[in-house]
Amino acid sequence: MIIKGATLLTMRDGESPFVGDMRIDQGRIVEMGSALLHKGSAEEEVDAHGCLVLPGFVQAHIHLCQTLFRNMADDMELLDWLRQRIWPFEAWHQEESMRASANLGLFELISGGATTILDMGSVHHTDVLFEAALESGIRYFGGKCLMDLDDGYVPKGLLESTEDALKETVRLIARWHKAAEGRLRYAIAPRFAVSCTDQLLREVAKLSATHQVLIHTHASENEGEINAVKDRCGLDNIRYLEDVGILTKNTVLAHCVHMKGGEIELLANAKSHVAHCPSSNLKLASGIAPIPDFLAAGVNVALGADGAPCNNRLDMFREMHLASLIQKPIHGPRALSAYEVLEMATMGGARALGMAEDIGSLELGKMGDVIILDPNSPEELSGGDPYAQVAFHLSGASVRDVFVAGKALKRDFEMLTMDRGAVMEDAERSWALLRKSFPDATRRSVT
Amino acid sequence: MIIKGATLLTMRDGESPFVGDMRIDQGRIVEMGSALLHKGSAEEEVDAHGCLVLPGFVQAHIHLCQTLFRNMADDMELLDWLRQRIWPFEAWHQEESMRASANLGLFELISGGATTILDMGSVHHTDVLFEAALESGIRYFGGKCLMDLDDGYVPKGLLESTEDALKETVRLIARWHKAAEGRLRYAIAPRFAVSCTDQLLREVAKLSATHQVLIHTHASENEGEINAVKDRCGLDNIRYLEDVGILTKNTVLAHCVHMKGGEIELLANAKSHVAHCPSSNLKLASGIAPIPDFLAAGVNVALGADGAPCNNRLDMFREMHLASLIQKPIHGPRALSAYEVLEMATMGGARALGMAEDIGSLELGKMGDVIILDPNSPEELSGGDPYAQVAFHLSGASVRDVFVAGKALKRDFEMLTMDRGAVMEDAERSWALLRKSFPDATRRSVT
Repeated sequence: MIIKGATLLTMRDGESPFVGDMRIDQGRIVEMGSALLHKGSAEEEVDAHGCLVLPGFVQAHIHLCQTLFRNMADDMELLDWLRQRIWPFEAWHQEESMRASANLGLFELISGGATTILDMGSVHHTDVLFEAALESGIRYFGGKCLMDLDDGYVPKGLLESTEDALKETVRLIARWHKAAEGRLRYAIAPRFAVSCTDQLLREVAKLSATHQVLIHTHASENEGEINAVKDRCGLDNIRYLEDVGILTKNTVLAHCVHMKGGEIELLANAKSHVAHCPSSNLKLASGIAPIPDFLAAGVNVALGADGAPCNNRLDMFREMHLASLIQKPIHGPRALSAYEVLEMATMGGARALGMAEDIGSLELGKMGDVIILDPNSPEELSGGDPYAQVAFHLSGASVRDVFVAGKALKRDFEMLTMDRGAVMEDAERSWALLRKSFPDATRRSVT
Repeated sequence: MIIKGATLLTMRDGESPFVGDMRIDQGRIVEMGSALLHKGSAEEEVDAHGCLVLPGFVQAHIHLCQTLFRNMADDMELLDWLRQRIWPFEAWHQEESMRASANLGLFELISGGATTILDMGSVHHTDVLFEAALESGIRYFGGKCLMDLDDGYVPKGLLESTEDALKETVRLIARWHKAAEGRLRYAIAPRFAVSCTDQLLREVAKLSATHQVLIHTHASENEGEINAVKDRCGLDNIRYLEDVGILTKNTVLAHCVHMKGGEIELLANAKSHVAHCPSSNLKLASGIAPIPDFLAAGVNVALGADGAPCNNRLDMFREMHLASLIQKPIHGPRALSAYEVLEMATMGGARALGMAEDIGSLELGKMGDVIILDPNSPEELSGGDPYAQVAFHLSGASVRDVFVAGKALKRDFEMLTMDRGAVMEDAERSWALLRKSFPDATRRSVT
């Protein structure tokens, strides 16, 4: 396949945008330059004149299982939001609703230019998430959520014994890790320190080392959460995670909004990764994460849209825009430039997932995880800087084509691997059931 | 015309969303209810099943003259942004580039559901702005920008004598105020206290009273600006505006980010209006305006996208989302709910422009300024609360139809009053000229 005539934003360190062509063969980028010659009629040509070509976005913190609950848990604080809405809703899930939720989210994510996601499942129906990801064609890191400690609010349907939680994790790793030629990967997902026992977290550390899989958890999103951990364990949250052994170079910590003394250095020394979720952090009144301090300390930062009920969109363009803007009143107008947030959305995510050699930038030998933006309307056309155009101006609606390892998931604004009508019908059917089970939480007339 | 079968968000105080029909006749809403009968074949029917119907958005602070400069002035602070980029660019404008800039902005605004805007022009070519607004069909409040005081940075092409500034204002009021059956209105626009003499502002107060036209200015966006006013006049900015007589019930003040002692009460007593521009305030590192304090004090607040180079989008959905989210870490998760920011985007704007009797909500007797959202895709479909859907989830891309006084400006996602191709071609021609004049400021390879 050859992509012709676009402006390439390679995200390779220090390289300026240039107009050129790119060849993808056997799933990898094999040639970039100007006026590449066509290899004959067998080769597919993608005309991209007037378009921007970028590495696909890496959404580094997602909850596909929650997509169905969008617009049903607004204007609430984190712990209320979890206990009154999200946990009861997750406990309610059946296989069918889980599949509907996953597909609704995958459609939006792929359509908006995400080629890789790191997803946290619910406690049950994790196979359904992997099956949906498999069919969609996305590059997927996911895992079942682990909750073996009752803080008094965890619904019965989500609480498990330590043994059951670990046993199911081991089964899922065996079934899904590196399936589909490595496109699917497992990430062990203890929910957060508040709902996990010491024993569980120590076993997670061992499993991660044994199987060489990621650890994906939430950390220090909210003061209430940090206080709960301190009350139980006597340690600040990040320090506690280090103590039980899960602060590793294969660990992705979502949020990290409130860092206590020395915790940024702990993260830097451990080479752990932060998945920054600016919309979610604002919407749940959690705060503004100290991203410039992380970067200054050498901590790698990725971006994520989190779940649909706390955002309420799964659009990387929105996260880039917000990630940049919210730092400026604090750190000045040059803080987190357009280029820097785009780097977080691509290479930052690749590093977080241990995939920096394979994805995150357009370089010879990397996977053909590539998106094409076609800003061909008065709202989207730009006479200015393309990084500003991507980070501040465009939205998921500009994404024309999406390729994962050279395979097209979206072409000419049409999704190829997912059935638009079926995704909507399945969601409607699950919403009808959800409304029956939770008539108050889903009423449609809040004023 | 009859709109059938939609969910109506009337924004009438305390009214819950309901499914129903709406009839518009002679430009006004004449009937709302369920299963309205068709009045025969002469009446146009708009099928809106599955759609949301809302009052059109009021964009209460816009600079159409700057749309062309989008993505050319990023990651900069307000005064640098003005002096190094925006003022030289505005001084460069010719009639043709001004028209291209206006049309580029009007297309985006209308397409995104704005039916009314309050625009601040540049110093010259103001007739072009009114002509463009006239042709587009939008409800337009605008006026030439007044700058008669050199702070050492105002380009010659923008600086005027007090007399010339006022003379041209009077001419424009006579030509445009209440033109097109009242659809176009004048708003006198001293830029900000930093670039206006006392004498000019006192005359503006008189002109506004004589002609019963709005005053539209910037105020207290930035500490540097506030200090400049204090150094010159010895007063805090809002207090100074009161002193020269322009703090009236017909005054719209953009920004109001930094309020000094007693200034919120001054605004409340004067019944002046705040146009809140959250994207712009973050992007220029200005800060976060104390909107909950304004509302608690009884100050009316509207929303605006400001100019394209400091946002970089002209989309009310983005402003609603941000306006709500940025207050939550400061004031808690219930601050500025989805409903409240939607109210600011509609009725708040109507009150600011003195049009609360005519626009801003769906009520019998009000103008037929109505938009229809069609969230008929997996990314946009919702099983939850429609206010959250509008404020947090959707974007301008969901706007299917736009009507001003019952006249269609957009139908079935197609713009009717503006030529998409011509708008883009004219913009490209002006960008080519701009690049020749400012090769450094418009280079496309910032990293």
